[in-house]
Amino acid sequence: MYNHRVLIVGIDGYIGWSLAMHLASRGHKVAGIDNYSRRKNVAKIGSISATPICEMEERISVFDLVFHDVRGGISFKEGDLLDYSFTRDFVKSFTPDTIAHLGEQPSAPFSMIDREHAVYTQYNNVIGNLNLIYAIKEVVPECHLLKLGTMGEYGYDTELEIPEGFFEIEYKGKKATIPFPKMAGSWYHWSKVHDSNNIMFACKLWGLRSTDVMQGIVYGTRTNQMVCDELLTRFDFDECFGTAINRFCAQAVVGHKLTPYGKGGQTRGYLALTDSVQCLTIATENPPEKGEYRVFNQLDRTYKINDLAATVQKVAKKQGMDAQIESVENPRVEKEEHHYKVQAEKLRNLGFKETRTLEQEVDIMLTDLQRFRNRILSKKNVIMPKAYWKQESYVPMVGH
Amino acid sequence: MYNHRVLIVGIDGYIGWSLAMHLASRGHKVAGIDNYSRRKNVAKIGSISATPICEMEERISVFDLVFHDVRGGISFKEGDLLDYSFTRDFVKSFTPDTIAHLGEQPSAPFSMIDREHAVYTQYNNVIGNLNLIYAIKEVVPECHLLKLGTMGEYGYDTELEIPEGFFEIEYKGKKATIPFPKMAGSWYHWSKVHDSNNIMFACKLWGLRSTDVMQGIVYGTRTNQMVCDELLTRFDFDECFGTAINRFCAQAVVGHKLTPYGKGGQTRGYLALTDSVQCLTIATENPPEKGEYRVFNQLDRTYKINDLAATVQKVAKKQGMDAQIESVENPRVEKEEHHYKVQAEKLRNLGFKETRTLEQEVDIMLTDLQRFRNRILSKKNVIMPKAYWKQESYVPMVGH
Repeated sequence: MYNHRVLIVGIDGYIGWSLAMHLASRGHKVAGIDNYSRRKNVAKIGSISATPICEMEERISVFDLVFHDVRGGISFKEGDLLDYSFTRDFVKSFTPDTIAHLGEQPSAPFSMIDREHAVYTQYNNVIGNLNLIYAIKEVVPECHLLKLGTMGEYGYDTELEIPEGFFEIEYKGKKATIPFPKMAGSWYHWSKVHDSNNIMFACKLWGLRSTDVMQGIVYGTRTNQMVCDELLTRFDFDECFGTAINRFCAQAVVGHKLTPYGKGGQTRGYLALTDSVQCLTIATENPPEKGEYRVFNQLDRTYKINDLAATVQKVAKKQGMDAQIESVENPRVEKEEHHYKVQAEKLRNLGFKETRTLEQEVDIMLTDLQRFRNRILSKKNVIMPKAYWKQESYVPMVGH
Repeated sequence: MYNHRVLIVGIDGYIGWSLAMHLASRGHKVAGIDNYSRRKNVAKIGSISATPICEMEERISVFDLVFHDVRGGISFKEGDLLDYSFTRDFVKSFTPDTIAHLGEQPSAPFSMIDREHAVYTQYNNVIGNLNLIYAIKEVVPECHLLKLGTMGEYGYDTELEIPEGFFEIEYKGKKATIPFPKMAGSWYHWSKVHDSNNIMFACKLWGLRSTDVMQGIVYGTRTNQMVCDELLTRFDFDECFGTAINRFCAQAVVGHKLTPYGKGGQTRGYLALTDSVQCLTIATENPPEKGEYRVFNQLDRTYKINDLAATVQKVAKKQGMDAQIESVENPRVEKEEHHYKVQAEKLRNLGFKETRTLEQEVDIMLTDLQRFRNRILSKKNVIMPKAYWKQESYVPMVGH
């Protein structure tokens, strides 16, 4: 039924592997590249994935066994976007219709540890993305660049309703449609803004086509394709790579207090892993026009962090776990109570519908994570924040 | 009378050297660093400075001889912002009150030659600037970062009047003050936007103080301190590092046609070298508050490119030169006729006043350049565009 050729950059990541299986199970031909930086960086801060993930080759063999009737399949090659010859040659040999670029350093706290991490993040992300843009231009100019950005690019410091990329404003009696201002809150988030700007320019300059995905925070342990443990995707719960709901669920299963930062009024957009994969698939199957730079706000709903902690507490209780909530000092520089209103209609207009409610998803997550309780327990010390964004008092667990 | 300690990053450049002498002659203590990348990059594209510039050590000796009564003086150390230890240690030892950051790859056409030049430009500029931000934070947190940006960050594709950085807009009945959108037109210009964003964030995060200068195109051969040839600053006339008026003047003195690109209706802001130095001095002597991120639009007047060619032609004629004007194919991707209105009041409110008219300045330039006619003639082949921004047909003159 479907036969796109999709290259996933960062196929070894949380969303990358999930997306690969979902696209392949729909009949798309998937190839992936990865430099394993996520595995390495999580190890550097002394953590592990709660789920015991396999090597790529094993994952793909198991996928082939289980989904032997799918046409496209998944292939993989280790390599780095920063190596332009590798990137160009791989793109040239696979000739993708879509490149889903999920291959960036994705952690705000990691980028804020110190200068070295800030530079690493902006260098890795901005130059890797620039190489990818050039590879597309040079060898597959019709290819759709599906780029993973973040809602954090807009920031959380505006009274304005956040549109999908562009909005019409009035100034001195003149109307104009302009990009919504980006007011990011970490070196990582700014690296994504730099990427967005470079991509927008490439679309204008060369007629590149791109979907720039402003994604909310993703939570969840699984998608439909994860029918056995060998097919699970990674699940991070540490202070750098673990995000809000995921971290709360990990805390609940090991009897740790749920620890919102500060007042807990921080409001963000969220969506489940299965819905992230659904949205990225919709974008893949509905590519933009040549020269088009379109922005999707990709999220299901917005929540205050305190409400998320309460939801995890409530679902945990049903499963017999007593999870206490205790606010801790906020390591970040951010407003802890603020206005937040977001437009997110484009993906819904293309058919996106959330798979299940937050409570239902958290219920699945807690069930999954209980099986990996001992793995989380063994790294309990990496959950709490040590990276304070103003003072930089952070000492990584392992030398690097 | 004045006693700021000013570190000039990029002191060997066109504006850097001019600013150093001007500040030192006003009694400020100036230290400079430079990695000589401008000299190297101009050599790589097969060009030279029209003025025969001395090595830094010689320049400084001659300055000391001529201006023996100034108190502060100029010192210099070769080094690269990308070398963080060097940068931090130098900043720490000099303890500047102001760092004038002019140390970036400044050419849009150079950044558009190919992928390698695009990556070099964004890496050099963004990471160098990030290192500088961190050095300030770590060793001189009260220091004023005076950063050279460009009016090109805003782009030339807007119907809106361009404010100085921020403007108040209305959207869905709500008012908000937001950064004016940046819509740059080259990888170089985008690198400056990335810098601006990183600096704005550092001001918010750490209370850094910064002036982000959106500078117009600078023209001119001299400032008041250039009383002998040994003290002249560089003057580029090639297609990459030579800018509009400077290139026209160089063309006029060697009997080359003046060659506006395309229709010639491109409108830009301009200011003379002596006024650029005047403005940067005003910013140095009137630093922003702690945590303040302020944007200055630094220009004298706006001109259409055809009008500039006509002015150079007219002044050349007075000096007995017959300069023809002939439009050539536009190598760039840009509008050739467009609306352009800019606010530039902040520097005037602090005392900026243009030193002389465009015609007076061009008269001085042509007189100066006639003495260096043979140098320009020897490199006449680098004036005309070979780097076409869509096709990338460019072949540099010298291997690199």
